[in-house]
Amino acid sequence: MSGSIVDFRSDNTGAAAPEILAALAAANHGTAAGYGDDPLTERLQERMGELFEHKVHVFPVATGTAANALALAGVTPSWGSIYCSREAHIETSECNAAGFMSGGAKLHLVAGEHGRIDPAALEEALENAGKGLAHRSQPAALNIVQATDRGAVYRLDEVRELGAIARLHGLHVHMDGARFANAVTHLRCAPAELTWKAGVDILSFGATKNGGLTADAIVVFKEELVEPLRYQIRRAGHVLSKMRFASAQLLAAIEGGLWLELAGRANEAAARLATGIEALPGLRLAAPVEANMLFVEAAPEVLDGLEAEGILFFRRRRDLARFVCRWDVAGEEVEALLAALRRQTGRRAA
Amino acid sequence: MSGSIVDFRSDNTGAAAPEILAALAAANHGTAAGYGDDPLTERLQERMGELFEHKVHVFPVATGTAANALALAGVTPSWGSIYCSREAHIETSECNAAGFMSGGAKLHLVAGEHGRIDPAALEEALENAGKGLAHRSQPAALNIVQATDRGAVYRLDEVRELGAIARLHGLHVHMDGARFANAVTHLRCAPAELTWKAGVDILSFGATKNGGLTADAIVVFKEELVEPLRYQIRRAGHVLSKMRFASAQLLAAIEGGLWLELAGRANEAAARLATGIEALPGLRLAAPVEANMLFVEAAPEVLDGLEAEGILFFRRRRDLARFVCRWDVAGEEVEALLAALRRQTGRRAA
Amino acid sequence: MSGSIVDFRSDNTGAAAPEILAALAAANHGTAAGYGDDPLTERLQERMGELFEHKVHVFPVATGTAANALALAGVTPSWGSIYCSREAHIETSECNAAGFMSGGAKLHLVAGEHGRIDPAALEEALENAGKGLAHRSQPAALNIVQATDRGAVYRLDEVRELGAIARLHGLHVHMDGARFANAVTHLRCAPAELTWKAGVDILSFGATKNGGLTADAIVVFKEELVEPLRYQIRRAGHVLSKMRFASAQLLAAIEGGLWLELAGRANEAAARLATGIEALPGLRLAAPVEANMLFVEAAPEVLDGLEAEGILFFRRRRDLARFVCRWDVAGEEVEALLAALRRQTGRRAA
Amino acid sequence: MSGSIVDFRSDNTGAAAPEILAALAAANHGTAAGYGDDPLTERLQERMGELFEHKVHVFPVATGTAANALALAGVTPSWGSIYCSREAHIETSECNAAGFMSGGAKLHLVAGEHGRIDPAALEEALENAGKGLAHRSQPAALNIVQATDRGAVYRLDEVRELGAIARLHGLHVHMDGARFANAVTHLRCAPAELTWKAGVDILSFGATKNGGLTADAIVVFKEELVEPLRYQIRRAGHVLSKMRFASAQLLAAIEGGLWLELAGRANEAAARLATGIEALPGLRLAAPVEANMLFVEAAPEVLDGLEAEGILFFRRRRDLARFVCRWDVAGEEVEALLAALRRQTGRRAA
Repeated sequence: MSGSIVDFRSDNTGAAAPEILAALAAANHGTAAGYGDDPLTERLQERMGELFEHKVHVFPVATGTAANALALAGVTPSWGSIYCSREAHIETSECNAAGFMSGGAKLHLVAGEHGRIDPAALEEALENAGKGLAHRSQPAALNIVQATDRGAVYRLDEVRELGAIARLHGLHVHMDGARFANAVTHLRCAPAELTWKAGVDILSFGATKNGGLTADAIVVFKEELVEPLRYQIRRAGHVLSKMRFASAQLLAAIEGGLWLELAGRANEAAARLATGIEALPGLRLAAPVEANMLFVEAAPEVLDGLEAEGILFFRRRRDLARFVCRWDVAGEEVEALLAALRRQTGRRAA
Repeated sequence: MSGSIVDFRSDNTGAAAPEILAALAAANHGTAAGYGDDPLTERLQERMGELFEHKVHVFPVATGTAANALALAGVTPSWGSIYCSREAHIETSECNAAGFMSGGAKLHLVAGEHGRIDPAALEEALENAGKGLAHRSQPAALNIVQATDRGAVYRLDEVRELGAIARLHGLHVHMDGARFANAVTHLRCAPAELTWKAGVDILSFGATKNGGLTADAIVVFKEELVEPLRYQIRRAGHVLSKMRFASAQLLAAIEGGLWLELAGRANEAAARLATGIEALPGLRLAAPVEANMLFVEAAPEVLDGLEAEGILFFRRRRDLARFVCRWDVAGEEVEALLAALRRQTGRRAA
Repeated sequence: MSGSIVDFRSDNTGAAAPEILAALAAANHGTAAGYGDDPLTERLQERMGELFEHKVHVFPVATGTAANALALAGVTPSWGSIYCSREAHIETSECNAAGFMSGGAKLHLVAGEHGRIDPAALEEALENAGKGLAHRSQPAALNIVQATDRGAVYRLDEVRELGAIARLHGLHVHMDGARFANAVTHLRCAPAELTWKAGVDILSFGATKNGGLTADAIVVFKEELVEPLRYQIRRAGHVLSKMRFASAQLLAAIEGGLWLELAGRANEAAARLATGIEALPGLRLAAPVEANMLFVEAAPEVLDGLEAEGILFFRRRRDLARFVCRWDVAGEEVEALLAALRRQTGRRAA
Repeated sequence: MSGSIVDFRSDNTGAAAPEILAALAAANHGTAAGYGDDPLTERLQERMGELFEHKVHVFPVATGTAANALALAGVTPSWGSIYCSREAHIETSECNAAGFMSGGAKLHLVAGEHGRIDPAALEEALENAGKGLAHRSQPAALNIVQATDRGAVYRLDEVRELGAIARLHGLHVHMDGARFANAVTHLRCAPAELTWKAGVDILSFGATKNGGLTADAIVVFKEELVEPLRYQIRRAGHVLSKMRFASAQLLAAIEGGLWLELAGRANEAAARLATGIEALPGLRLAAPVEANMLFVEAAPEVLDGLEAEGILFFRRRRDLARFVCRWDVAGEEVEALLAALRRQTGRRAA
């Protein structure tokens, strides 16, 4: 694969799926009312309702950060606090969009392994939160990232347990599903099981990372959350005027199961990589590989060597690499990465 | 044109230009770094710099509201006030996104005709603004909508005059160019003349209404405004992860002059409509037709009649209609609207 | 009164009433729990409840702006709009505190005479507000200033009419009672009649301008508004840690009717001034004198002459003076102002 | 001391110093311009300038939370992050006022002992902060609490070291001086040494806890920070209209050194308590006693016993008590607490 790109930087470096691109072309005829009053957006509401086996309201938005921050703003008063894992995307990577969109809500970090929230730690945090004390931001929302930012996937019973704790303490539950497709694929469960049946009130449904171009969505399972969100999303500039072109992407993803097929490819590539890496001395998987990401501990020299070979990836520390498998990662890229890892670990062992 | 759609509701009901759709397909190969670190976004910076004959920084965003509100947040402190016309889009149609994004800035409405700001009214407002008085929001920004929300176009000297007043009073100047292409087409001037050379610091560059799918842009002419905007845009969820697909739309629009060609079609259709309407008794153009919109006063029964015929358009009052020409409005639609107007005014005269 | 101060600038230039100062000394013994958990604050809740013949929750705060902005934040979502008069203090004099505290709500100005809101104008505004349209800030609150910023006082039936319109359209009603005492004194009505019985949900109860030092209060008539306000007030830094010293001021004001006695003095001085001014040629009262303020139109030279004589007052225009009577304005000050006005108008007539 | 109150709950449960109360009476004559344009506020600026040996701008505000949150809003962009200790008042006790006032800034917690910030931990945090990465809130301010919320006092060289790190990384430095007087008293240093000479840009100067009624202050050492703060403070409702009554309190505190005398009394009482406690078996001081607070570890039964005896104090955990000495704590209260501790620990040992 000489000269070719080997790119494990992120799933957002990938291309759009041909089916999704084709859907844009198919949507591009005639006129359509703006701001979501079009037939494609209407169909999206219905299809998503079928997919989730529940009446839902879907707000297509342009980015995952918008989906997360606006969903959280919809379930948190401005003096609220949002409980999330230390590795949660809203904490590490969104420039405090959640704090901004909500008018000042605070993130409260909860311990846990591999990007998960530990139920006992959550309970302890909530018991010490000072509910009713005006000196303290008030517990308002739980943010669950599924799959996690460490590439792990909560089991169904784990989500249910967190959901039950949240309900007990009066928190709304938001699921950051930037990689929801990868999680559903891994669990082979119904989307309903993983969301409203497990206590999730509102979901960020990721499509961009999974073969879309510029479309994610907020999926609301609780009717009473919808109306305020309409205004919050509008004043955040996240109501697309030609919304049909976002809805078309989302429809193409879910109709016919494309979203799970694409996520399946990414997950499989990650699993193949994991198997290869486990066989190599000097490498350690720092988190379970359950979705499409791998965190690999290695000697700094090994990672330096990969970089020198031109392999594209990000380092979290000098001795910790993250490899993300895109839906369109080529088999050759997986082979090329494994070969390079073999070379670099072999050199070091020699 | 029996049975066909005749749609003058808005320019956002239109399709995407085939060239712009094709650019998406062309951009869809290989991998590209996320969040704007990709070659297409880089090329966009350069091409826009050439177009405006000035070093610029371009932030592609998903909507015109995002462009407006974030551009204004970039030039207004949270205790600032923004001077705009009574008909300005930021005042009438964006759910106070500017107030939200800026952390509390206030809109100050200034009189003027046809969506324009009257320079004398602006000066008077600024002189009575209580500059330096802590009891008052402090004058911070001027918002000029070009073309205006009434379909008029500021002449170059008019923009320069407003720019000079703004500079004198220490205001930054933001141009809401949702229909910038229509204005440039009408004026047959260089984009530079209409912007930084006339005192504009930051521009909302509209593309969605002019043949794009989901892409507008903030164009910054003042270097020192760029860095803070990077974070404000990020935390507002308006940095697209696969930005290449927004940059591709914007590039396709400006490379080769497509944006002016599309706007030209819309403007011409509006001019043809205007000519036809002026010839009809009982109709009055409520504003000059200089871009792609017409505001027409008519007896309520005439407008009722149009609606009954299935013509799509919006009424601002019972006796005031707005007709917007899309870039892709068909000649048949123009003819159909004129024919319907003839029928309805004729019936009334009879 | 040679050499003495003649000061009609504002009621906030006045001293504290001796009774209120004495109450501070009386409160200054032993220890008391902080943040309002003290016996004086508890007594304040009870006494205010008796005064208003209704269960109320009282939040002592340091300023009238805090009372207004926080009360409004308590009844307005961040995407709401607040209907107020063009002369309302929240519009002209509080640096958009209401917009800030509410997280972005917008003020919508309604026409009316003498600082009042015209009911017909309010209804028209609400009917055109675009309720349910996401493009528009949503009608949320009505702000009634009683007495108005032009020195007029709404009659009871006028407040009731506005209250009824508000209720019909789903607005909460906030009364800015910075000069509530002056209004009650003028109307000789029960505080209950002027507030919750007339549709008022939440009141800014002014004390600072009426003989206090640094204490105003938010009085909440609707139970469900209380809990969110506790947190909003706390995070705005408006929960005084030694709250007993604010509560003591408010108690001293209302126990024994001192607040009405003080306001009565100010109103009477204003009435005497009004009588004197009406007798002078060349002067015109620009608004009814129903509380403790006068707006007087006069030739600019007359007002220049007053200033040259050292009379302290503010000009709203070159030919419009505002004179405010403090609770402690001396009879000599009233006489001195009238004498000066006689001199200046006489000189001009000569 | 049978029947008497023994109160170690907080320094805000204490009375006002007679000298400060007397200053209110002394200020209560004649008229004075509102909002700080009065002679007492002017004198306050001068005296504070002399006290700090530097031109300063002083903003009297009603509470310590207001001082902290507004000072931080004055040095942090809305996308900034504020570095503080895990025990900092702004993190634990102010309902995220700093996040609210700043428009969305984020608190970043830094490890350290006894409420201090560890310089090495601060440096590490700043190096990993992702400066320039739009995904991250940008390092903007350092919050140093002096004395700390654990009753410790930073040495001068420790403040200087933190100040130097902050300067190196482009952070502004805010000192939360709710107990600044206690710290200065402990260190016996010039206020200038502890503030601007050590790198502090802006100070919350506490007076309420130290014998005041309702007055704290923001002291600004950097001229360019003043102007924006004028508007931020105004729109937060923290500009007192009768400001002379706040300035009088602050002047009475600093003129003649009363503030240090009062803090000295509180510190001495704490030192006496500490000596007594160290002599008792079964008790452990959890933090150095350098100001007016003690954190004491004891068996839960011991603390239960104190409560049963009617001693007033707060527990942070079942086995951790906080005792705060007011400026007006009586010698008998100190003795009574020590006697009770002797009884309770003795009972347990028996």
